[in-house]
Amino acid sequence: MSKIAFIGGGSFGTALAILLAKKGHEISIYDRDETVVNDINNNRRNDKYIKNLVIPESVTAFINIKEAVKSIDYLVLAIPSHVIRNMAKELREIIDESVPIISIAKGIDPETDERLSVVIEKELKNPVIVLSGPSHAEEVAAEIPTTIVVTSRNMEYAEEVQDLFMTNDFRVYTNEDIIGVEIGGAVKNVIALASGVIDGMGYGDNTKAALMTRGMTEIARIGIALGGKAETFYGLTGMGDLIVTCTSMHSRNRRAGILIGQGKTMKEALDEVGMIVEGVKACKAFYELKERIGISMPITDALYRALFMGKPPKVCVSELMKREKKSETW
Amino acid sequence: MSKIAFIGGGSFGTALAILLAKKGHEISIYDRDETVVNDINNNRRNDKYIKNLVIPESVTAFINIKEAVKSIDYLVLAIPSHVIRNMAKELREIIDESVPIISIAKGIDPETDERLSVVIEKELKNPVIVLSGPSHAEEVAAEIPTTIVVTSRNMEYAEEVQDLFMTNDFRVYTNEDIIGVEIGGAVKNVIALASGVIDGMGYGDNTKAALMTRGMTEIARIGIALGGKAETFYGLTGMGDLIVTCTSMHSRNRRAGILIGQGKTMKEALDEVGMIVEGVKACKAFYELKERIGISMPITDALYRALFMGKPPKVCVSELMKREKKSETW
Repeated sequence: MSKIAFIGGGSFGTALAILLAKKGHEISIYDRDETVVNDINNNRRNDKYIKNLVIPESVTAFINIKEAVKSIDYLVLAIPSHVIRNMAKELREIIDESVPIISIAKGIDPETDERLSVVIEKELKNPVIVLSGPSHAEEVAAEIPTTIVVTSRNMEYAEEVQDLFMTNDFRVYTNEDIIGVEIGGAVKNVIALASGVIDGMGYGDNTKAALMTRGMTEIARIGIALGGKAETFYGLTGMGDLIVTCTSMHSRNRRAGILIGQGKTMKEALDEVGMIVEGVKACKAFYELKERIGISMPITDALYRALFMGKPPKVCVSELMKREKKSETW
Repeated sequence: MSKIAFIGGGSFGTALAILLAKKGHEISIYDRDETVVNDINNNRRNDKYIKNLVIPESVTAFINIKEAVKSIDYLVLAIPSHVIRNMAKELREIIDESVPIISIAKGIDPETDERLSVVIEKELKNPVIVLSGPSHAEEVAAEIPTTIVVTSRNMEYAEEVQDLFMTNDFRVYTNEDIIGVEIGGAVKNVIALASGVIDGMGYGDNTKAALMTRGMTEIARIGIALGGKAETFYGLTGMGDLIVTCTSMHSRNRRAGILIGQGKTMKEALDEVGMIVEGVKACKAFYELKERIGISMPITDALYRALFMGKPPKVCVSELMKREKKSETW
């Protein structure tokens, strides 16, 4: 049995912590929010992020990061993309460089456009493993059958983490394409946000399926340009995660999009969702990135104009639909 | 303006007939069901197949096929896959061989496993154009933004049909890969039916996204083996149509699957849905086809066992989840 620390007590981190605890591992969770720490330790719950759970006794929460990471075998980085670099710097002094770091955030560094594993590897010598796929926390915690992918620059670590997490209801695949896994997981949030806008505007299933399919083309296009493989984007971490994010009310990206489609401003929508919406940051990052690389991403373009330039979503959709007639493989 | 005959007054045919009538064309619909014919002609409705529509005066329904196809410019074949061969034989005597035939069914010939355009071309010398994509009839009729694909062995005809159907809300793409368009449209019904079973059993969004993604792999695998192109399967007629079929209550394939997942037999489910469920026939056809070709399609396999061999769906899902741990790109 291993000792595993989670940095961040958010919904997905908590769900994975419970899964590992049930497998017999000893779990610590570091969170800077005292309410979360006390709720876990005293009530065996984490109502701020994920409701109706019973957290096993073998999970202990800490407000002090040093105590949380004491003599651990694995560290799971379960914090939003924009705070990863600083956290990695903080960890440099307090964990042994042999401890594998499992990254579960989906996004890219807002400052440098680097993949999150690259950010971590620049700050720390530890092996980095990425875990990604269609896995709403609420369903993982409820032991609903879920599939997920692990990848790493060193696949021996990925296979170790595959064994660590695998259960009968949580099926873990390996994939060697770390670029594809990370980029797909980040761009899909952009398309999911756009798909939420379509939902919020009251368009139908036909419209949304079209947007998701053309959105997949955008994900694959920028992903391949950045060095990922097509089959990864059309696998669980790309298409699979896109589908779950676009169709589930568990998704914050989708919920934020729906509010925007209903006429709220971006700020109002984010305030109402109340948690980090990675798709907003990712939209800006990938908009700038594709402008720099020079590739066509019309949906990302349209969403950027709706989010950051105040263009009415209705006008954006209408412009997408009225482009010149053409062949499907543009 | 053209004169266009629809063979079959089902939901999608009727929706397309209304679209073309609104563009100013003269439309005839042949249906063997007198109730449907009278409902269209007398009440401007087609309540048997699609509710709450007003059918324009320029649409006339006929119980006599010869009257319906008199001096037409185009013919739309809007009947289920298993009756196409006989209808094509019947048409041989009564339409000019210059009339382009537009095929909108999604399936393969249950006797010979041939694509539907091949069946038509064996019986008739007419040019054949295939129209396919994520397009629930109810939404097309409501003028909700929809995208669709046309293809043909002779792309000049496909471009002609693109112009015929294109509107601001109905965006028509061309695609040269007729094999990919037809096979993708047929196999997606198998996966949609399986996905409905998952819904009916009460599994979550994670499970369904996994099934759809792994299902896409099966669609592409058999489709490429049969001569289609990967990008077609991941486009509107494959992935797009899969998404809309798996997520919409408009889909009969999904509804039938849900009933089976809830414990009904295949016969009970089909009786309750009351219309043709193409996925059932397609499951049998593609099961036999993949056995013959020798490729792996575990979801199609599992569905076949649930539908035709009385294996409980729960056991099938559980077997899919408990396969050996592996890499994603199997």
